[in-house]
Amino acid sequence: MTTDGEGWIKSLTGDAEIAALFCDQAQLASFARFESALLLGLAKAGRIDKQDAAALIAQIKTFAPATGRIAEAAVSDGVPVPEYVRQLRNHVSGPGAEKLHFGATSQDLVDTATIETLAKTISILSKRLDQLITALEAMTARDGNNALKAITRMQEALNIRASSRLAGWRLPLEALRDRLPAVREQVMVLQFGGAVGDLQTLSDDADTVAKAIASDLGLRWPGHSWQTSRAPLIAAASWMTELSGALGKIGQDAAIMALRGKSDLELSGGGTSSAMPHKQNPVAAERLVAFARFNASQMGAMHQAQLHEMERSGAAMTLEWMILPQICETAGAGLTAAIALMQSINRIGTRS
Amino acid sequence: MTTDGEGWIKSLTGDAEIAALFCDQAQLASFARFESALLLGLAKAGRIDKQDAAALIAQIKTFAPATGRIAEAAVSDGVPVPEYVRQLRNHVSGPGAEKLHFGATSQDLVDTATIETLAKTISILSKRLDQLITALEAMTARDGNNALKAITRMQEALNIRASSRLAGWRLPLEALRDRLPAVREQVMVLQFGGAVGDLQTLSDDADTVAKAIASDLGLRWPGHSWQTSRAPLIAAASWMTELSGALGKIGQDAAIMALRGKSDLELSGGGTSSAMPHKQNPVAAERLVAFARFNASQMGAMHQAQLHEMERSGAAMTLEWMILPQICETAGAGLTAAIALMQSINRIGTRS
Amino acid sequence: MTTDGEGWIKSLTGDAEIAALFCDQAQLASFARFESALLLGLAKAGRIDKQDAAALIAQIKTFAPATGRIAEAAVSDGVPVPEYVRQLRNHVSGPGAEKLHFGATSQDLVDTATIETLAKTISILSKRLDQLITALEAMTARDGNNALKAITRMQEALNIRASSRLAGWRLPLEALRDRLPAVREQVMVLQFGGAVGDLQTLSDDADTVAKAIASDLGLRWPGHSWQTSRAPLIAAASWMTELSGALGKIGQDAAIMALRGKSDLELSGGGTSSAMPHKQNPVAAERLVAFARFNASQMGAMHQAQLHEMERSGAAMTLEWMILPQICETAGAGLTAAIALMQSINRIGTRS
Amino acid sequence: MTTDGEGWIKSLTGDAEIAALFCDQAQLASFARFESALLLGLAKAGRIDKQDAAALIAQIKTFAPATGRIAEAAVSDGVPVPEYVRQLRNHVSGPGAEKLHFGATSQDLVDTATIETLAKTISILSKRLDQLITALEAMTARDGNNALKAITRMQEALNIRASSRLAGWRLPLEALRDRLPAVREQVMVLQFGGAVGDLQTLSDDADTVAKAIASDLGLRWPGHSWQTSRAPLIAAASWMTELSGALGKIGQDAAIMALRGKSDLELSGGGTSSAMPHKQNPVAAERLVAFARFNASQMGAMHQAQLHEMERSGAAMTLEWMILPQICETAGAGLTAAIALMQSINRIGTRS
Repeated sequence: MTTDGEGWIKSLTGDAEIAALFCDQAQLASFARFESALLLGLAKAGRIDKQDAAALIAQIKTFAPATGRIAEAAVSDGVPVPEYVRQLRNHVSGPGAEKLHFGATSQDLVDTATIETLAKTISILSKRLDQLITALEAMTARDGNNALKAITRMQEALNIRASSRLAGWRLPLEALRDRLPAVREQVMVLQFGGAVGDLQTLSDDADTVAKAIASDLGLRWPGHSWQTSRAPLIAAASWMTELSGALGKIGQDAAIMALRGKSDLELSGGGTSSAMPHKQNPVAAERLVAFARFNASQMGAMHQAQLHEMERSGAAMTLEWMILPQICETAGAGLTAAIALMQSINRIGTRS
Repeated sequence: MTTDGEGWIKSLTGDAEIAALFCDQAQLASFARFESALLLGLAKAGRIDKQDAAALIAQIKTFAPATGRIAEAAVSDGVPVPEYVRQLRNHVSGPGAEKLHFGATSQDLVDTATIETLAKTISILSKRLDQLITALEAMTARDGNNALKAITRMQEALNIRASSRLAGWRLPLEALRDRLPAVREQVMVLQFGGAVGDLQTLSDDADTVAKAIASDLGLRWPGHSWQTSRAPLIAAASWMTELSGALGKIGQDAAIMALRGKSDLELSGGGTSSAMPHKQNPVAAERLVAFARFNASQMGAMHQAQLHEMERSGAAMTLEWMILPQICETAGAGLTAAIALMQSINRIGTRS
Repeated sequence: MTTDGEGWIKSLTGDAEIAALFCDQAQLASFARFESALLLGLAKAGRIDKQDAAALIAQIKTFAPATGRIAEAAVSDGVPVPEYVRQLRNHVSGPGAEKLHFGATSQDLVDTATIETLAKTISILSKRLDQLITALEAMTARDGNNALKAITRMQEALNIRASSRLAGWRLPLEALRDRLPAVREQVMVLQFGGAVGDLQTLSDDADTVAKAIASDLGLRWPGHSWQTSRAPLIAAASWMTELSGALGKIGQDAAIMALRGKSDLELSGGGTSSAMPHKQNPVAAERLVAFARFNASQMGAMHQAQLHEMERSGAAMTLEWMILPQICETAGAGLTAAIALMQSINRIGTRS
Repeated sequence: MTTDGEGWIKSLTGDAEIAALFCDQAQLASFARFESALLLGLAKAGRIDKQDAAALIAQIKTFAPATGRIAEAAVSDGVPVPEYVRQLRNHVSGPGAEKLHFGATSQDLVDTATIETLAKTISILSKRLDQLITALEAMTARDGNNALKAITRMQEALNIRASSRLAGWRLPLEALRDRLPAVREQVMVLQFGGAVGDLQTLSDDADTVAKAIASDLGLRWPGHSWQTSRAPLIAAASWMTELSGALGKIGQDAAIMALRGKSDLELSGGGTSSAMPHKQNPVAAERLVAFARFNASQMGAMHQAQLHEMERSGAAMTLEWMILPQICETAGAGLTAAIALMQSINRIGTRS
């Protein structure tokens, strides 16, 4: 779901690096990888000659789809794949060309492209998360012994060390980092089910072909299609939403500390006000709160999208496409904002 | 919140006409109208000479802001206005130039621009809604006497006329249309509060200036700023979400009817399948379901964004900016899809 | 949706007065009113003798349904009505007894009972809202001239009068009060559609019967059933959610003010802490924030429940029943908590 | 959050067995276990004599708290613990009695009680999940070779075996079962942080005491308090919401199959209609859809509740208490309904 041209909202809330992963060009490149891997798999199962497959794959590499026409056709088809495959079929020729897309269906391409995109998104987030944790460790080393008033239920409580509040910020991020391998394991699965999910066109060759595709794409083949069971998408989205939540807590704290003043937090480079130029608004902190609440709401919608009826749900898939890219971008924008926030904090707490 | 370049998702779920209303150019044009109207108001209150105001307004008309720089500055400022006003101040000169933006604050410009955008969105939606109702009336005239099986709790019940189901589609849309004047009345209010919401800089002239701005912009002045009370935004978003819900019900019905077959519904131009070219998928109907569920979730988030703390909440405003444009686009895309769906229905029910 | 026996959570977050409106006894009393009004309507249309109807209505008055058995049967029937009607048929006898429930369906009783309950809930909320507004007016009279620091984007801004912040609390509540007549008008509609929504069993008498029922119950007859178009429920729930949001903003502010200390807010009777007995936690304020976020989420779910498929949706109705009573209770609990909060505020701002 | 006395809604949507785990009596019993374990821990650290601790623990066993008074005090305290501890202190006496609750805080008791409740809930759900999977295996053995039309995008597609659709129901449940050990590991952690989360009152003994409490309660001590980082609650709630989603997909499918008729599904014991006694409504299936959409919305709210500000958030905790018990009950009610649905399915698909 996109709103064209909102430049300033986009720069305030978007993530250009992650957005690029979701652009048509990137998604269609993923489709091409799938179609190539499928040909390899069909060759492995003896459904197409190996040389023929190689020749077709070479042609796929030179395919430049007409993206405008694909976007247009998607409105009536509900997916970009039929028009993509039509164009691709026009592009390739030679023996075995009729085996292109054989046994596959639109959802196989779209879902697998989504998986590849989530894997890349997670890699980007993982690097930024490392950076943020490092920044928090450095801050703890620098300011950890400073004094703060603990605040419980919006009341000053006992004295604590800054290290204590910083641990409350850092530990959840470390826990999220520790869970990443398990999340990747859940997420990085091949979607391959064919027209109705049971790979019936490939009969006994189905497993051979599926394993070959998975191996070529660096994904796991779970032994069956998951076209109506969206656990991989939920796993990625949940992790990202928890990340946004953990960052939102940091943002909420930082905003309250900024309000309490310099004994709590010394910020540089906060936002300026058009009416009160002297203020240093904790803009990055506020953005983190907004991002957390945004992704929390989207996550509810992702769970709504779990109800894929029968063998394939166009409604539920469309809902996922409207939400999932935004969850990714918002998680990414949050990490960038949190790193910026850390860089803008000159000091936390009061030196004793 | 936008994800750049998702061409096919954008064409499937977005609304180019409404998206254009939210683009920087349109929003900054709204800022310019506000600043001009403010000068008129200040002139009316005797705070600036009328000729001087007119001369400045003439200069504002020729102002072409550097949008890239504004988008960039928004990241640290949290709003596009400080940089916009800085550029505008550089652009204008002459007596009274120091009165530019006098008494106003960033939120006044951004909120009022949002109001203007919502008003334009509602006008677009209103026209399309009329079209859709007309299409439903025509379908009722054509097919109303046809026979259908009523379906209650997913079981065939008694026989009904097609007109009965069509009334279930049309009446909620008519009710939404009937409520539009009241919604417009709630929505079309000027935001004007100054630095902290009480217009203190303008003291006794506040009301004079506010009324003049409102009159110039064709908005209502409610007598006070509503910077932390978001009823106008909620009113617009609620109406649009209800609209999406009413369309989603139509889509859900049409999808079930398409599944039940030609005695219920004869569709032309449904979506094609990459694996089963003979199918006619009810893509427009599925999209309506997805749009309804999407906006329902966003509406929950809009209510979350009601908690504007103290005199101005950067967090809550940012959250609104991430959600509101999407609710507008999704409502618009839904009407377009519903009109297309009606056009693709050759017949509802069985002729007796 | 209820969780039995959570005494302390219930006392912290529930509303006993409103909960009582949703209890079986109250709902079944509403069913009885409907069945009686239906007999009156059938008599008016000449479908039953007036004396016979009166005799049956007299018997309905003495009917004490076996609620346990009804709750049990609801699990398989999905609604309490079939078993209720079965018991009622056993209870009444005499000429015309076969006309009991004639032309009506389960949803007519359940929806109309919901409408009656919402009307009573709104009356309760309206009284409490008046009380709260009065308390805010009194506080403004007492403390309005006191000085506060305005806080914008979590930074101290300019000096304001306490009256300014109090206006930010009171004005949205007044606006909600002003909208109540329109909300009541939208909400207080009779549901009457019969088996499949078109009142076909009553043919030409449908309107006569419907108007008589509506008149007897003090409701409006919109001219048609609204069984799959839930605008009346959405209208009530939206108003309550906005109310919770407006109270949540007050709570959020009060909590921040309590944190800032006695120059902002002097509270008495705040919550005690098991570990730090000296604290005065702004518990009522925190509850208001929780209630606002709770109802915001539930409101998203109410919009999800708009998708009633075909002529009757058991799934969507069940979802409504899980959510709507909670929105009502939470709105009510919020008003009670807000009134308590006002009573506990000894002073806002600093006397000059 | 509870609505007292909604008998029939409760029986339709609640889960009495799980509700009982959340009742005051069960929660206060958990508090007692915590206070006893704490005394053991203090004894281990030499902060209290072992005999004295044992004597106090014996007295705790006979403590019968006045629950009404606790529920009442919770309104002003925001938690039930201060009044509970006050009563408990009155109940116990003897040497070391002053060490009761030493080093602990309200949230330690409430959170740990929640953890114990979640562990018990998961055990209940796990057993029912096994039952449901067994039922699906039996159905596959009985009907797996029957023929069905696959339905993709609400259109009939190719022929499939019933085993294929049943696999789409069963595999996600098996995956959820496989993830249970990891979920339990994430969930079953002791909360222990003291007044401000750093266990400062216990200084060097903190770890000794914490480990002893954890060991006594059969929980894991993660090495630090997690009072503002709610990953354990999110892990449990996410798993339950995914479960509800997987069940909702089954319900959605079964409802569509029931509509398509006996070649798809033969149901016995469906719901009766007050107006059309011949129908067999797929009530259990509809409930599953409602439960899935309900929990999806609640899960969004759980993520909203992640923003615990500073060292303790009364607002966020209250929000959790309003939501988490409902997610648990709804997940439980869903499993019960799904098992009932399976029992009511006489046949899936058409025998060849």
